[in-house]
Amino acid sequence: MKILAISGSLRAASINSMLLRVMAEVAPPGMEVSVYRELGLLPLFNPDLTELPAIVASLRDQLLQAEALVIASPEYAHGVTGAIKNGLDWMVGNESFIGKPVALLNASPRATHAYASLRETITVMSAQVVEAASITLPLLGANLSESAMRADPHICGMLRAALLSLKDAHRSSVSAQAGIA
Amino acid sequence: MKILAISGSLRAASINSMLLRVMAEVAPPGMEVSVYRELGLLPLFNPDLTELPAIVASLRDQLLQAEALVIASPEYAHGVTGAIKNGLDWMVGNESFIGKPVALLNASPRATHAYASLRETITVMSAQVVEAASITLPLLGANLSESAMRADPHICGMLRAALLSLKDAHRSSVSAQAGIA
Repeated sequence: MKILAISGSLRAASINSMLLRVMAEVAPPGMEVSVYRELGLLPLFNPDLTELPAIVASLRDQLLQAEALVIASPEYAHGVTGAIKNGLDWMVGNESFIGKPVALLNASPRATHAYASLRETITVMSAQVVEAASITLPLLGANLSESAMRADPHICGMLRAALLSLKDAHRSSVSAQAGIA
Repeated sequence: MKILAISGSLRAASINSMLLRVMAEVAPPGMEVSVYRELGLLPLFNPDLTELPAIVASLRDQLLQAEALVIASPEYAHGVTGAIKNGLDWMVGNESFIGKPVALLNASPRATHAYASLRETITVMSAQVVEAASITLPLLGANLSESAMRADPHICGMLRAALLSLKDAHRSSVSAQAGIA
């Protein structure tokens, strides 16, 4: 099962990006998590561009090929980061989110505004926010390095459990579609 | 009185951008509205950049020189546009919003999510959202051209009244500061 993971922060030492890299390393067998690394290279969304820039088309294709999506994004000034919303804005006009199981990771229990906004946007884009996979980890201020995160059995367990919940959601949605067809 | 006006859409025929250009033309005497045109040229915000790119420093300086701010921004997928939030993200670390009277224009009565998010972000950035100046105009779907907007006495009257409310808010805040000092 292919999963694309997107961090909403462009900071090199971003806790959210670390979390996704750790998730990729601890993924259960049969689940492959690719961390998207080009969010900061996307141009700002302009609806006048009728032809998608190549880098935007590549994001769309990576999403279409993924069976599920994980997003981890910080909160800036009580809102989503411009960077993550810009990436989502580009995807509104295509099919890449439709029916896709999404895990929304939150690295800070206090960051409620951005999390709620992302959930609203992703839901209106017809993706399926998987509740059991959308976990909050109290990492902000914990000052953990990436290797400390990777060595923490509690964190790794939560990330693995989130991935297994995504897998369940994907399986149920595939069975439901098969049932309808 | 100098006012900076920022549209959150990069679309050439954006209703929000039109509205701000019309506002600049119908401004009452003594009020000068400059429409910011470089939102689409800003790089994506990266907290690792300790030195501000020149174009970002220019936005900060234009904001510092303005005595009030007008923002008109559309809603994309029940959220703020990535473009406007990216511009705001760059300004979080400086003084350009502190105490500044802001009018939030909304061109669509149905676009409540983005409007509420912008209000939250701008408030947490210590600007002062001026209620009387923050008006909703039922323009989405009205299909008005810019010249039709300019010729509409109701729209022009609302825009002028919003500017006068901004002026009042600016005056009160200046008097309050003088009183404290």
